[in-house]
Amino acid sequence: MKASIITIGNEILSGMTLDTNSSFLARELGTIGIPVALKISVGDRADDINKTFKQALAQTDIILCTGGLGPTSDDITKKVAAKLFGLKLKFDKKILDHIRSRFAKRGIEMPACNRGQAMVPDKAEVLFNPEGTAPGLLFKKGKKILILMPGVPREMKAIFAGSLKERLEALSCRMKINMLTLRTTGISESAIAEKLIPFEKGLAKSILAYLPTHIGVDLRLTLSGKNSGQIDAKLLELSLKIKQLLGPVIYGQDEETMELIVGSLLKDKKLTLTTAESCTGGLIADRITNVSGSSDYYLGSIIAYSNILKEKMLGVKSQTLRLHGAVSKETAIEMAKGVRGRLGSDLGLAITGIAGPTGGTDKKPVGLVVMALAGPKGTVALEKRFLGQRRHIKESSAQAALNMLRLYLLKC
Amino acid sequence: MKASIITIGNEILSGMTLDTNSSFLARELGTIGIPVALKISVGDRADDINKTFKQALAQTDIILCTGGLGPTSDDITKKVAAKLFGLKLKFDKKILDHIRSRFAKRGIEMPACNRGQAMVPDKAEVLFNPEGTAPGLLFKKGKKILILMPGVPREMKAIFAGSLKERLEALSCRMKINMLTLRTTGISESAIAEKLIPFEKGLAKSILAYLPTHIGVDLRLTLSGKNSGQIDAKLLELSLKIKQLLGPVIYGQDEETMELIVGSLLKDKKLTLTTAESCTGGLIADRITNVSGSSDYYLGSIIAYSNILKEKMLGVKSQTLRLHGAVSKETAIEMAKGVRGRLGSDLGLAITGIAGPTGGTDKKPVGLVVMALAGPKGTVALEKRFLGQRRHIKESSAQAALNMLRLYLLKC
Repeated sequence: MKASIITIGNEILSGMTLDTNSSFLARELGTIGIPVALKISVGDRADDINKTFKQALAQTDIILCTGGLGPTSDDITKKVAAKLFGLKLKFDKKILDHIRSRFAKRGIEMPACNRGQAMVPDKAEVLFNPEGTAPGLLFKKGKKILILMPGVPREMKAIFAGSLKERLEALSCRMKINMLTLRTTGISESAIAEKLIPFEKGLAKSILAYLPTHIGVDLRLTLSGKNSGQIDAKLLELSLKIKQLLGPVIYGQDEETMELIVGSLLKDKKLTLTTAESCTGGLIADRITNVSGSSDYYLGSIIAYSNILKEKMLGVKSQTLRLHGAVSKETAIEMAKGVRGRLGSDLGLAITGIAGPTGGTDKKPVGLVVMALAGPKGTVALEKRFLGQRRHIKESSAQAALNMLRLYLLKC
Repeated sequence: MKASIITIGNEILSGMTLDTNSSFLARELGTIGIPVALKISVGDRADDINKTFKQALAQTDIILCTGGLGPTSDDITKKVAAKLFGLKLKFDKKILDHIRSRFAKRGIEMPACNRGQAMVPDKAEVLFNPEGTAPGLLFKKGKKILILMPGVPREMKAIFAGSLKERLEALSCRMKINMLTLRTTGISESAIAEKLIPFEKGLAKSILAYLPTHIGVDLRLTLSGKNSGQIDAKLLELSLKIKQLLGPVIYGQDEETMELIVGSLLKDKKLTLTTAESCTGGLIADRITNVSGSSDYYLGSIIAYSNILKEKMLGVKSQTLRLHGAVSKETAIEMAKGVRGRLGSDLGLAITGIAGPTGGTDKKPVGLVVMALAGPKGTVALEKRFLGQRRHIKESSAQAALNMLRLYLLKC
């Protein structure tokens, strides 16, 4: 049993819209043992869509297709599929009621063109879309299955999670492909590779993949087999070996983010946190508050983007700013102490730096970042240098500051 | 002249890593008149890579390939391509010096395995990588060109922008495909479609695409032709018609973000801004400070995630919180006035809401958000209701708050 993934839309083919759907679906299919054999992007032309459907139906058993189900005139996927399967469109009152209720919830009247989304091919199965107005559709002919879903990722995911995943799993030949990812930060890809030489010796090449980004390197282990439990046990064994070799540069596993890990450490240790941000401009606070329940340990932040606010809101001495500059260990330490004291938390995390592209000097170049952490036992500071564009420097800095906090929490 | 885009890596095929490279490259190729005929993802197996290279070389003229150039054992693209073109790997001192200097800049010693990245196929052209350690490579055989670039998007983009784009443009048949995008927010896809009925009448279907996300709907106009100036003039004409029909729901064009637009309005009007965030937890500040030069008009923010900080740092009355709750127009207004007064800016923007998934009630459900804007002439407040997951609600809320500020600035 093999699957194809088809993404429809000129905006995908021309690259104007990033295709996130096919990676989500490939990943999900992998977990239920259905390998993806074909990945195709096609534009909004009926002929091209029709041809691609036929090719995919000939080469694979299950076709998952996203895009082209919206209310506007460029959305033609449903019509093409209905024609290919010899079905006619009919009106479905339940779908219309659902669409109406979504607009009503937001206090907006339903535009007339949304009515077309309640027209569905007879004999195609309707897949409920809890997140939007376009329902999913399942077409069947013999053992071949074609599934249409909207291109909006949130809606596609909701339909997939609804009942589709379970049903596809029941069809799968049950050869499982399981993965485990260890997430590292603060160490380069090549430095990891050196430490893992004894681990990689004799290991099949396809098992370990290095996935580097500017905020860290993910290490992905992949194994396949018939018994999911056995694969998972082997993955666990391999991951423990890597953990022994790498130590605390590994901050999490699989979908765990740095903010999630830091959050659970704060919760475990019953400590509260406040932050003072300059160069990251709120990104650290944003990441911390992406975690549901973060209000239990996170009180808030002062984003002191200007020097005046560093003095006024955080109590940084004007002498410190004058003598050492806004980007200095001295300033970072006063920011951390200031936010901890004034906002009243157990820990205060501060960061100041030069995100660029302007503002750098020979002595203090773009990418120079200083972090400080104030706690009941005193204050520590750390200087880092990052390369890249403004957004990259912000993201690298936020990750490094959260990692500094994590390493502190691991020891206290 | 046609192009293929090949992305290499098990992590891409299995969906574990999102492929952003192929959309970037397709977009860039479109602007220089080279259409993409083939998009393929392939895993880290020498046989598969070799087959895919051959297929792409047979069907298209230019192959852009990303991934598999790293220092680790799973990176084999360079070797496969060298073998296919009958070339041998040789050591390049200039590349090694560049790699060493990158590590030195960050104060880290170069791991030994990075040395392998300085081995390049003789007769292949080396493309300088200013952002990383793996150089790009250009192979030529007759009129066919194969280009290898690293999979890290920042590095691939730097190599492409370096000199590659210009060179490919010189080769292109010069049939231009130009695009213009109008960006809207605060209006649904179907409501836009209703307003654009007179515009779409008689318009070829492929010209206008609706690209909805939870923070707005982008309207993409695409035209092709031989004369880039003529296409652009026609695009401008069409965009003006859309602007007339839609009015101020359009906030920007092409790559313009809401924060960029708001930033230039603040600059133009010589006004300073501070923000007070609760439910968005720093996301508004983060977005504002993504704009280089934002320190000219943005002083900072108070992220008052807890009610205590709303009182202590923003001066919200405890009575207001008790009587109306943290998510209320009354609280939002006091937050906006508080941050404006205490941090000393012309404008104060505040937001409070329930990002979920917990914390909602019948009267105040998850997704309820209240925004307020305080200025010299008084304070306005606005209530919105969003649907979706926590991160979506944060993003929708931040966009709506920035849009409220934009609409205010347009009038003042």
